[in-house]
Amino acid sequence: MVNSARQVRAQIMAPNATSVGLDIAGKIYSMTKDERGMWTGTSAPQDPGFHYYQLNIDGASVPDPGSLYFYGASRWGSGIEVPSDDQDFWQVKNVPQGSMSEVYYYSSYTEKMRRCFVYLPNEYFTNPTKKYPVLYLQHGMGENEYGWAQQGHTAQIMDNLIAAKKAVPCIIVMDNGLNARAARPQQQGAAQGQRQGGFGGFGGFGGGFANDFKNVLFNDIIPMVEKNYRVIADPQHRAYAGLSMGGMQAREVTLANPEKFAYVGTFSSGAWSVDQVKASEGFAKANKLLFMSGGGKENMGCVEAAKNLKAIGINAVGYESEGTAHEWHTWRRSLFEFAQLIFK
Amino acid sequence: MVNSARQVRAQIMAPNATSVGLDIAGKIYSMTKDERGMWTGTSAPQDPGFHYYQLNIDGASVPDPGSLYFYGASRWGSGIEVPSDDQDFWQVKNVPQGSMSEVYYYSSYTEKMRRCFVYLPNEYFTNPTKKYPVLYLQHGMGENEYGWAQQGHTAQIMDNLIAAKKAVPCIIVMDNGLNARAARPQQQGAAQGQRQGGFGGFGGFGGGFANDFKNVLFNDIIPMVEKNYRVIADPQHRAYAGLSMGGMQAREVTLANPEKFAYVGTFSSGAWSVDQVKASEGFAKANKLLFMSGGGKENMGCVEAAKNLKAIGINAVGYESEGTAHEWHTWRRSLFEFAQLIFK
Repeated sequence: MVNSARQVRAQIMAPNATSVGLDIAGKIYSMTKDERGMWTGTSAPQDPGFHYYQLNIDGASVPDPGSLYFYGASRWGSGIEVPSDDQDFWQVKNVPQGSMSEVYYYSSYTEKMRRCFVYLPNEYFTNPTKKYPVLYLQHGMGENEYGWAQQGHTAQIMDNLIAAKKAVPCIIVMDNGLNARAARPQQQGAAQGQRQGGFGGFGGFGGGFANDFKNVLFNDIIPMVEKNYRVIADPQHRAYAGLSMGGMQAREVTLANPEKFAYVGTFSSGAWSVDQVKASEGFAKANKLLFMSGGGKENMGCVEAAKNLKAIGINAVGYESEGTAHEWHTWRRSLFEFAQLIFK
Repeated sequence: MVNSARQVRAQIMAPNATSVGLDIAGKIYSMTKDERGMWTGTSAPQDPGFHYYQLNIDGASVPDPGSLYFYGASRWGSGIEVPSDDQDFWQVKNVPQGSMSEVYYYSSYTEKMRRCFVYLPNEYFTNPTKKYPVLYLQHGMGENEYGWAQQGHTAQIMDNLIAAKKAVPCIIVMDNGLNARAARPQQQGAAQGQRQGGFGGFGGFGGGFANDFKNVLFNDIIPMVEKNYRVIADPQHRAYAGLSMGGMQAREVTLANPEKFAYVGTFSSGAWSVDQVKASEGFAKANKLLFMSGGGKENMGCVEAAKNLKAIGINAVGYESEGTAHEWHTWRRSLFEFAQLIFK
């Protein structure tokens, strides 16, 4: 529960415990016990948006049985939504509804079945011949393919924007950017990590994670999507965006392969520099939109960086999410802005 | 973790706890602490199949941070799969994959947005003009629309059967049979229950739950499905099945509305009697298959009951799931059998 001062309150019955705490991102708030054995604790005011948390009972860190489960911080655990003034844009509303699908596919690169989520707009079903552009949309470090489907409320953001005629209906594909290592003998450790749903070995951003995910994206994901769905299968109708580490992957992959994606978005992934873009042969010519964003509390300088890129002829847009930090409300707002600019 | 004797082992770090237990369906197995503060406990051998469980730490019942979350026993919590000899049929395999979609829709009966899951077979996407029969498939008491999609592994059962050409490709719709109460002023208590994801007030099976769900099914779900998807929209291509309470609902609704569904399945919902069927005007004429099943440990007498119904001209099939009880492996096997018999 969250009160009007944006303080999180948690409760748990633990009659025999001697110490119980509410742990929000590592900061532990002591809880107090009443005569029935019910512990109650209240946090300091939190930033608006989504926060992972857990309870600590006599030294054991456990999920709150009163919460749903979300994958973040490299584990499934509890999460709490601290209300924001503008949360209306990602609520379920009575507008034409798309669908969010769990889809498995075989990856020839990892030699395993993999899972992704696929958002299809409402008219994909009602208009059975039309073909659609595709946005590949990636999560951050310690998260997985559930992030955009669940915490991100991608389907609701898109359904609401499409109903208001503010976004072009498109397919959105959300995959796992961390478990994309090939299962080769010399990488047994990494393969083991994958099976446990964790990181596929830690390779760093440059040439590690990004390179592995790029191989799965190009060899397996894009061909699967363009085979199974009604897709306009050309770079002019293909976008790639990601948050935090997912945005760093998007930047690295699109700079190295500018002919593949006309639209790119990076959310809370730092600002792009003029030098980075100039160093990529073909990027300036092929790119139709470079969107970069960050939370107001992150001070990433995206608005200024976009001005500099505009000066060299890039259609760059910088967006700062007012009052938010490195969390999902920044990224939902970023998708909300980005989705209104692509495929137009 | 489960060992070869089908004992469940759980571990949790709780250095300051004085008592920790592993709670499987109310039976608590004491755990013991090592010098680091890690508690380990092992259960008695469990039946093959899916079991809900939790940990008890100094009197607090909490989810195991090492488990995913499943909805059952009227709450989200931990679950463990105890391997069975025949579990191959619901594994993810490299065969053509359908998709499992989360879909919201507006219910004019409850005056709320509702959620269901929709399975679409692989060829729904690759064959863009073909129309499909639909199975409406419901969960049991204390469960929700996630049950068949998650614990039931419905997509994998169907993908594997369809790939083996043992089942007719069909659409499967899974909804919530417990929160279907209309939000009328005199039912505020029930409406409150719905918003919390629990029971929509307890109305008993006869005329309560079943009647509410029937209203949502007939007024909202079937029209939504037949509008949004490529469906053969006639009773000959419409089936209704459920497990436990969901099967009791299916029996009550199909006996009262035999003209709506040619195929009906009830899993762990008791045996149908000759008198019940005779009392329904039109059932014998309209029904093409009456499938009833139960776990071998449930002793529901479905095989015998089917013989009696065959004797009065009903195409009844009784199935007993060997060695299993009132749990998901019984129901997965039941779907596996039922799906091979419908729409043929």
